[in-house]
Amino acid sequence: MKIAILGFGTVGRGVLACVEHINDIEIVKILDRQLNDEYPKLMTIDYQTIIDDQSIDAVVECMGGLHPAYEYVSQAFKAHKHVVTSNKALVSAFYQDLITCANKNNVHFSFTSSAGGAIPWLSSLKRAKRSDDIVSVHGIVNGTSNYILDNMANGKLSFADALKAAQDLGYAEADPSADIKGYDTMRKCVISANIAFDTLIDEKDVLVMGIQKITISDMNFFKKHDYRCRLIMEASLHIDKVSAYVEPTLFDMNALESNVCSNNNLITFNGKNTGDLSFYGQGAGKLPTGNAIVQDLLDIKDHQVVTQKLGKMLIIDNTYVKHAYYLRSKVTSDILTDVIDQQEIIAGNSFIITKPISVVAAHKLACEIALSDTDYFMAGIKESN
Amino acid sequence: MKIAILGFGTVGRGVLACVEHINDIEIVKILDRQLNDEYPKLMTIDYQTIIDDQSIDAVVECMGGLHPAYEYVSQAFKAHKHVVTSNKALVSAFYQDLITCANKNNVHFSFTSSAGGAIPWLSSLKRAKRSDDIVSVHGIVNGTSNYILDNMANGKLSFADALKAAQDLGYAEADPSADIKGYDTMRKCVISANIAFDTLIDEKDVLVMGIQKITISDMNFFKKHDYRCRLIMEASLHIDKVSAYVEPTLFDMNALESNVCSNNNLITFNGKNTGDLSFYGQGAGKLPTGNAIVQDLLDIKDHQVVTQKLGKMLIIDNTYVKHAYYLRSKVTSDILTDVIDQQEIIAGNSFIITKPISVVAAHKLACEIALSDTDYFMAGIKESN
Repeated sequence: MKIAILGFGTVGRGVLACVEHINDIEIVKILDRQLNDEYPKLMTIDYQTIIDDQSIDAVVECMGGLHPAYEYVSQAFKAHKHVVTSNKALVSAFYQDLITCANKNNVHFSFTSSAGGAIPWLSSLKRAKRSDDIVSVHGIVNGTSNYILDNMANGKLSFADALKAAQDLGYAEADPSADIKGYDTMRKCVISANIAFDTLIDEKDVLVMGIQKITISDMNFFKKHDYRCRLIMEASLHIDKVSAYVEPTLFDMNALESNVCSNNNLITFNGKNTGDLSFYGQGAGKLPTGNAIVQDLLDIKDHQVVTQKLGKMLIIDNTYVKHAYYLRSKVTSDILTDVIDQQEIIAGNSFIITKPISVVAAHKLACEIALSDTDYFMAGIKESN
Repeated sequence: MKIAILGFGTVGRGVLACVEHINDIEIVKILDRQLNDEYPKLMTIDYQTIIDDQSIDAVVECMGGLHPAYEYVSQAFKAHKHVVTSNKALVSAFYQDLITCANKNNVHFSFTSSAGGAIPWLSSLKRAKRSDDIVSVHGIVNGTSNYILDNMANGKLSFADALKAAQDLGYAEADPSADIKGYDTMRKCVISANIAFDTLIDEKDVLVMGIQKITISDMNFFKKHDYRCRLIMEASLHIDKVSAYVEPTLFDMNALESNVCSNNNLITFNGKNTGDLSFYGQGAGKLPTGNAIVQDLLDIKDHQVVTQKLGKMLIIDNTYVKHAYYLRSKVTSDILTDVIDQQEIIAGNSFIITKPISVVAAHKLACEIALSDTDYFMAGIKESN
């Protein structure tokens, strides 16, 4: 199998390193923005030479971003080349379009590493669906956020210091918005739900809360009440609707999620036959991601791809899910009166546990609070099993 | 694909329930010890009719035990039928023999559910090996033991009461020896190591300690020192040798293993590219096991089996692994003098933490202690990450 790599950053170099010892996969071209002295026989800045090379069976897209990744991937399909990518922004935004294009051209579009990195999450989910009905998917899918939350709780760092540490280690990007505001998690939610429920959900309908406002005072409250905070995605099937949201979530100390340390991921599906099955490991990184891409390539080479059905659009309805929330805010207005279950006031901040309210109601409440207190922090509370 | 089920207990019924909604898998015979009124068109007590039925593509062995399971499975291979089983005793004891026989007859022998039940552990391990070198496998693979340990710690039950509760729930058998003495865990260690390292290790060379002597006084010590006790298997590759052992093991409260509750399993492999990848879920039960068997059948039907190499015999050498141990004993003789790091004496019992010693030395020490104190309990201590 001959492949071309598009983009020669961390992930592209990871693929190169992981392919090295694999017989039957040969890298014949590497597309990069500019030529350098490395691998002169492989490097090109001209994508057309890759498209025109009929010996290339598959293109590995490691550029990131939506454009020109979208155009390049579409072109590859039309040239009857398989595509493997770890680009969750691309997969989440153009899911229907790209799978349709791949199917039309009778080639495969594989993206296991786009959610869960090294973890065989999406591939296991696809395989599970062959014999089981998936009821829900949920979990920790953003290593940067988890690193920050873990280091604030255990290392007693402020949010800013924990973010800085994540950036110093290469876990967080210079602009960490997508990670800390929950958009990266949202994309992995969309991709996981689409596969789990044979559906097509729209990014903009997923309700998203991030961790960007969390403080040491929140962490102190969680510690006092034996909670750990994790940024999670959750999507469940409700007959012909789907609930799908991203929230910081408080778990009791006995939950598996509570012991997910550093930048690791833990992702779970609940199947009617199997109950909860969870998958843990590195959600990013050069060799972990490179290895997952190579696994996708091997599946294509060995004809072991589980075909992805393209489902129908399902409406997202987050009124189905209700749980209690934690809220720290300076707001004292009566918008909170009806929802308060417990309240502590410390140094002008209200630390509130709400009654169970729907996810829709909670995210609406958050918007209202933000009008008068932009520093508030809110998190769902997971009931103990 | 037409299949026959051998044995119609919990697992056999689970397969029947899980196959119901699967197109293309049809149960045409069920072998049971005696005929009953259920499924009169399917039931038979005569295995030869199954062997002679050339329309049957695969045999699902759910009888358990070594004999006649071994003979029946061998006969099926010779009649060119694939075999799927969840029978870990069979797979562990006759690994080389059965895989050789299957290969010779050009059929598949699949046994994903023999270690980890519902968890796609062995199938993921096989797939991982296509692109990664596996360094070690370890984890909680016996749900009964975990249920007992979890209920002793959290429910404050005695060992006898926790075992009784496990038996009442159907988690433990009337004779629980294989579970609590670690032999079931040892078998899953052998199977996992054979796949992970392309080797053939011998059951009798795996060092095994069980949980049968654990008491509330041990649990109190663990609680006081922030440990949780789990029964684990561990096997690692050391160039051309393998370490492989089963031990109760103390984890700190932040370890993922510490939060594996009830009868769940958590199994991990460490790969050179991926680092630790862990898999969590139900390790047994009617539908979970039935579902895993159906997944194996679908892999065979869809030509998605990752071929199992039959490796060479590797010597087990447990001198490679050293760690501290916990020991509770009434023994005061000088066999302990050299190994003691910390010691507390409470009500005539010594509670000892040893210096790091090899697994071989520890299991030898256990044998010496047993000569004068049959009630002792010993457990490895996992270093924090």
